[in-house]
Amino acid sequence: MIYDIRREQSATIPDGVRAQRRLQTLAKVNDAALRLISQRSVDGWTMADLARDVGLTPGAFYRYFQSKEEIIATVQITVLRDLMSAWRWSEQRVLEHSQASHMTPVARLLVAAAVYQRLSVESPHRFALLTMSITSPTDVLSDEALAPVSEATLALLTRFTWIMTDARRSGHFHGEQGDESVDHDRAAQWVFAQQGLLQLHRLNQRIPGLADISRALRSLQDDLLCAWGVRTEVLAEARKLIESAPDELAQEPVSVAQS
Amino acid sequence: MIYDIRREQSATIPDGVRAQRRLQTLAKVNDAALRLISQRSVDGWTMADLARDVGLTPGAFYRYFQSKEEIIATVQITVLRDLMSAWRWSEQRVLEHSQASHMTPVARLLVAAAVYQRLSVESPHRFALLTMSITSPTDVLSDEALAPVSEATLALLTRFTWIMTDARRSGHFHGEQGDESVDHDRAAQWVFAQQGLLQLHRLNQRIPGLADISRALRSLQDDLLCAWGVRTEVLAEARKLIESAPDELAQEPVSVAQS
Repeated sequence: MIYDIRREQSATIPDGVRAQRRLQTLAKVNDAALRLISQRSVDGWTMADLARDVGLTPGAFYRYFQSKEEIIATVQITVLRDLMSAWRWSEQRVLEHSQASHMTPVARLLVAAAVYQRLSVESPHRFALLTMSITSPTDVLSDEALAPVSEATLALLTRFTWIMTDARRSGHFHGEQGDESVDHDRAAQWVFAQQGLLQLHRLNQRIPGLADISRALRSLQDDLLCAWGVRTEVLAEARKLIESAPDELAQEPVSVAQS
Repeated sequence: MIYDIRREQSATIPDGVRAQRRLQTLAKVNDAALRLISQRSVDGWTMADLARDVGLTPGAFYRYFQSKEEIIATVQITVLRDLMSAWRWSEQRVLEHSQASHMTPVARLLVAAAVYQRLSVESPHRFALLTMSITSPTDVLSDEALAPVSEATLALLTRFTWIMTDARRSGHFHGEQGDESVDHDRAAQWVFAQQGLLQLHRLNQRIPGLADISRALRSLQDDLLCAWGVRTEVLAEARKLIESAPDELAQEPVSVAQS
């Protein structure tokens, strides 16, 4: 069973010290696991190491988690949720800043991209952990442990598919032809093509001349939107909105759970 | 020091059993290391395990490799080189098949993409190993071990930059404006945006409905080329060339070193 920290936190907390202590422990486990993974990769630590880090006996610890896989899946889901919160938060802040009543779908895509880029730069371990199920040479998670991670990943992708549908139906992309499979393909392209470039960040710091990632990323965004027939004034307006609110984008708590 | 298996192999092999045995041992180490990495990831084995697999005493083994990092770097470089060979080989075969005398830069980009896609599908461990320096949450290689891998990666990227320059100067992309930084950005986009989508292959097999990768990949290629202003007839001709020679693309030895 995968613990859903957020759901527990947002639910009404029953009175009593025990429930609160339990939530605190789960949050501590999350932070400590992330720290261990970033310092020693996925394989370089044991459940006992983690139990010690959070001050629990192995026996007490096993009441929370039965396996490393559960822990890794829980941390991955937490990172995904933080990312979704940061995205919503940033949209809100950018809207407030611009005093606009709504945001075009194209602007939403650019805000999401900016938030994801920040995560990859400021919290490279979280970013790598998020993509680990995709990139590891061996399967990190069993089918059972992967299930809730898949669900969260698909939920994120679906959100992007909706935005693509919205952009197409609002006439912000040229022609209104196409169906939802086009929107789904575009969502996958938007998320995973950018992810491919964002992965270069760490290597880029070590290999001079590899790539100017921010520039290549911006080109990629413009190229995709251009190929989808974005109306020029819609793109210009969205870029202007993002660039007028750099602080609003820079302050959102991508790393809200970082200890 | 990183051993360069290929250079040793292509150099004149001195007479004598010892030199030949040495090359055979290096090739065996390469295969065994790849097998261990695919079965147990990067951390789940020791130098002693690998020595045992290839039938050497630890002492004899240390004469070949001083660290796991050296081994991993050597395997990565071998995969990169195999990929480059497969690309050249495929171009040759597609040209022979079509009885054309040359290939347009756009067709070369599509052949390269097809070869890379095959690697990701048919040899997912090799593909993951290739992208490991990019995607691991911790640094897999020290600066010293990374250096030759960087060199090989940059050489590959430079090859793509040349093709982008060629396409631009030949008027296959619209306008001939732009400089080499544009070509370099396009090379990075072409390689790493597609890599981002290719990484989904393994996860896609486990999560129903995640994405139709082949279709999303083809859209991504068309979208990028379209945004770069590819001439319609050039793209159509290149697609026709690739599609008329599926067997030529399917037979190249991407996994030439696979045991």
